[in-house]
Amino acid sequence: MRQGIQTLVVIGVGLIGGSFALSLKRAGRVARVIGVDRSAENLQRARELGVVDDISHDACQAVRDADLVLLATPVGQMGPICKAIAPFLSPHTLISDVGSTKGDVVEALRSSLPGQLTRCVPAHPIAGSELSGATAAQYGLYENRNVVLTPLPETDADAIECLTGLWQSCGATIHCLTPAEHDHVFAAVSHLPHLLAFSYVNTVADKADAERCLAFASTGFRDFTRIAGSSPEMWRDVCLANRTALLAELADYRAELDRLISLVESGDARSLTERFDRARLVRSAWHQRFQRKIT
Amino acid sequence: MRQGIQTLVVIGVGLIGGSFALSLKRAGRVARVIGVDRSAENLQRARELGVVDDISHDACQAVRDADLVLLATPVGQMGPICKAIAPFLSPHTLISDVGSTKGDVVEALRSSLPGQLTRCVPAHPIAGSELSGATAAQYGLYENRNVVLTPLPETDADAIECLTGLWQSCGATIHCLTPAEHDHVFAAVSHLPHLLAFSYVNTVADKADAERCLAFASTGFRDFTRIAGSSPEMWRDVCLANRTALLAELADYRAELDRLISLVESGDARSLTERFDRARLVRSAWHQRFQRKIT
Repeated sequence: MRQGIQTLVVIGVGLIGGSFALSLKRAGRVARVIGVDRSAENLQRARELGVVDDISHDACQAVRDADLVLLATPVGQMGPICKAIAPFLSPHTLISDVGSTKGDVVEALRSSLPGQLTRCVPAHPIAGSELSGATAAQYGLYENRNVVLTPLPETDADAIECLTGLWQSCGATIHCLTPAEHDHVFAAVSHLPHLLAFSYVNTVADKADAERCLAFASTGFRDFTRIAGSSPEMWRDVCLANRTALLAELADYRAELDRLISLVESGDARSLTERFDRARLVRSAWHQRFQRKIT
Repeated sequence: MRQGIQTLVVIGVGLIGGSFALSLKRAGRVARVIGVDRSAENLQRARELGVVDDISHDACQAVRDADLVLLATPVGQMGPICKAIAPFLSPHTLISDVGSTKGDVVEALRSSLPGQLTRCVPAHPIAGSELSGATAAQYGLYENRNVVLTPLPETDADAIECLTGLWQSCGATIHCLTPAEHDHVFAAVSHLPHLLAFSYVNTVADKADAERCLAFASTGFRDFTRIAGSSPEMWRDVCLANRTALLAELADYRAELDRLISLVESGDARSLTERFDRARLVRSAWHQRFQRKIT
């Protein structure tokens, strides 16, 4: 298999891991995909849908012949999984992941797979939706999307090259950041808005007349809260894993919100217009760039 | 014209007013639409696009033969406009609006059109987007959408009936609320999320490395911030007009955000999961209902 791999083991066959498997299969870059998942039902579904070729309930057995093991569980589970599979890995087996946080994953790899670090390529594909599970997996999820790699100083060049090639065959563009850079950037543009959306929905849900309020919610509410439909477990893990960077973002946001509350309190029309104008300009410019890229 | 009107004057020919005109024309409920707008260019465009039949730069002249005057400017301009057109209105002319706030509009009507209150039907169509101007006007914008009427105690029954019929012919469902009920509900499900989205974009924009952060923003960011592309002028007016209800919502949100910050600080995994779980359930249930209605 030219520039591909024989056996891919995906641990956690959900939207992200499943879509990676499907995309690689379509690109002809993998001969066999073995799915491992704590949910027998999800795993069964993944096989029925052709997301994986074979299934296993035992990660340790599954990884024995793997060329690449992709960790695609919530980040909190990656450390224990690495510890468990460590004795069963071949020296050549590549380890990668799809976690939304990277500092904690690198730490987990260092402590659980100290003998395998040359084969470790931590990664974060910037794609997804509020959906989860094998049924959400889809071809083309990574077309024109960014994938951030945070290789270790120890990582072999050929390991980085292999993962780069696989993600590129899914249509993605590769970027390299340090784990700290990654965690700072994604605290700002991903983790923070998720927390704000969860908090907002809870604020409405806690109202005495929540039902009536929700009855009048419309498209603005729909789009603003879409990410509040995301996996609670995944986002709990992200909060815990990226706590420091996230708390810094939350503090910045809280300060900005306090400034806005003061402007509303004092009825400062000019400053309100200026702040909204600035947000609109930044958002519109961003959206033009983003759309050009995605479509 | 059966159950329709002869002459509609739309003051402020943007997304909302323009779409009302287009929808009524398609439904055969209006014979002639006159557009008034402070922007000559927008007005010209509205005529070219067939959103209006005639244009006028003088609201006072335009309203002379109107059966219905629709105020579709930012809410802050409605009071002065009512004061200006008051001497030129026929006793039979209906006055309605599309403002996102109702307490202030009712107050403006009371103080500026005391002789016309029996013909006043304040309204708020729950539709829109981050787009604005006559080019954004579209048929079908109000299909399966809610329109809230907040009639005055003085309002004639036939005036309410006429507006109800016109909005229904656009595909909308009519609800009646008091102005205070309206302003409370929409502070929660519309005004608050707009302010949170503006604040969030400003928080990112103020970062030293904003450019790099924005380069990695993706679909979650896109949807969460869509409403931050909305008209600054409109939202400044909403903030000022609905200040009291909005400040109450902002205080509730800030308290919820502070609770969440504490949970992240203390690493309270169980409570974080519970809060996220609750938000997901509420949002998913809402989305199922909303989708069934819209599609």
